[in-house]
Amino acid sequence: MQDEPEVVILRLGHRPGRDERMTTHVGLTARALGADRIILESAAEGRRETIEDITDRFGGPFEVEVTDSPLGRLRSWEGSIVHLTMYGQPVQRIEDEIRASHRKEPLLVVVGAEKVSFEVYDRADWNVGVTNQPHSEIAALSVFLDRLFDGRELDREWKDADKRVVPKKTGKRVEEVE
Amino acid sequence: MQDEPEVVILRLGHRPGRDERMTTHVGLTARALGADRIILESAAEGRRETIEDITDRFGGPFEVEVTDSPLGRLRSWEGSIVHLTMYGQPVQRIEDEIRASHRKEPLLVVVGAEKVSFEVYDRADWNVGVTNQPHSEIAALSVFLDRLFDGRELDREWKDADKRVVPKKTGKRVEEVE
Repeated sequence: MQDEPEVVILRLGHRPGRDERMTTHVGLTARALGADRIILESAAEGRRETIEDITDRFGGPFEVEVTDSPLGRLRSWEGSIVHLTMYGQPVQRIEDEIRASHRKEPLLVVVGAEKVSFEVYDRADWNVGVTNQPHSEIAALSVFLDRLFDGRELDREWKDADKRVVPKKTGKRVEEVE
Repeated sequence: MQDEPEVVILRLGHRPGRDERMTTHVGLTARALGADRIILESAAEGRRETIEDITDRFGGPFEVEVTDSPLGRLRSWEGSIVHLTMYGQPVQRIEDEIRASHRKEPLLVVVGAEKVSFEVYDRADWNVGVTNQPHSEIAALSVFLDRLFDGRELDREWKDADKRVVPKKTGKRVEEVE
């Protein structure tokens, strides 16, 4: 988010066909919950448009980048690295340490789909489990971001939006933004 | 979770083919993050086995139920009702009220896929937005449950598990449970 070191999501292991909606939801969740940017592999390039379309309509800033060398991006990252995995250390035990690090430097958050190579576990500063149960990379990412930002992401402002949802007790209200 | 009023997830609007993995992830997220039970529509019955298989291996209690009348279940629910929707009131503003209610009575959490009928908005005690941005019902559910339970779900114990993941700084460790 603005005025803070960058938080970037690296989506690994996208399987064309099988993972299309999951990767879209990872991207939209990253945007909605305060990340600045997502890096997709070439195999997931088709997802870029859907995510950018939401940013065009509902605001940003949020960037989508595509790379043919996701592990290269991991190796050259200047900052700290979190890898979300059910095998990792409980988020509730190490979130303070990660938050303290993020006050000082950018954070890369790796979200895998299929099996992730050992290099990722090894290069991560923290392998983090949102529970040690099998569930969903979208769920892990969203709980992680909400805790990283301590809920601040829920009150962020959006720039250059065409539309804005006005919260309602019942029903739907969407305003055009002037 | 045990010793608390029940939390039940009602998954609405599952579209066969399109929503299979999403509904599986909703179910696994519900289980991992402290819900007691998920109710699926008949159209999503094929997802039951995958979710129950995880419960058999990694523990419970967690129940999967299938109904041919999801709106009937909503109408006859005895307790309070949350409907997760990007059009709703900000979760951070009303979570205290919902937590207070859940200390006293069971809570039904409605998670829609495609468009949800107005009756759901109308019957819900709270229409809740985890941001008012379009993202993912899995993300909304996971942030909502983590806040509802105040993180207690991350330390819950699992019964009748065959396997247990042992948190590690690097790599993977799974133990057989005696």
